[in-house]
Amino acid sequence: MTEDNVIRVANKPAMNYVVAVVTQANSGAREVVIKARGNAISRAVDVVEIVRNRFIKEMEIKDIKISTEQVQRENGTTMNVSAIEITLAKK
Amino acid sequence: MTEDNVIRVANKPAMNYVVAVVTQANSGAREVVIKARGNAISRAVDVVEIVRNRFIKEMEIKDIKISTEQVQRENGTTMNVSAIEITLAKK
Repeated sequence: MTEDNVIRVANKPAMNYVVAVVTQANSGAREVVIKARGNAISRAVDVVEIVRNRFIKEMEIKDIKISTEQVQRENGTTMNVSAIEITLAKK
Repeated sequence: MTEDNVIRVANKPAMNYVVAVVTQANSGAREVVIKARGNAISRAVDVVEIVRNRFIKEMEIKDIKISTEQVQRENGTTMNVSAIEITLAKK
């Protein structure tokens, strides 16, 4: 899969990312991967649920992975941040 | 599985829930289910990652489910909230 199919959820309103996922799906992608870290994880779950319940009912959750990523602070030290990766696929 | 094995993550610090999960696991539970809704979803992922990386390395993620739940507001109307359910199991 190319990086084109990856939507990174951050601090914008959930609907911005919903539109991005729907656009990817409608332009032919069979799979879209939604990624998020830290506090944005809750929003990523919202995005997936809104896409499935309101926009593209034939998409299903193929895989959900959680992990820990190391992020560098400005002072050079690192901290651990939780991450999620949800793969949506057309049935 | 009985409800005893369910930890509901809400607004307390993540370590409170980590202790609850570790206590369940050490008192003989083969599986512990971590549930959360809305903004607490990110914290639930943190809890699972901290338990696995720092406390009980022989626990693995058996299943992750996301869903939408209807919650009643004080004025009687309902709103949709995303939810997550992560099952940790001993290998």
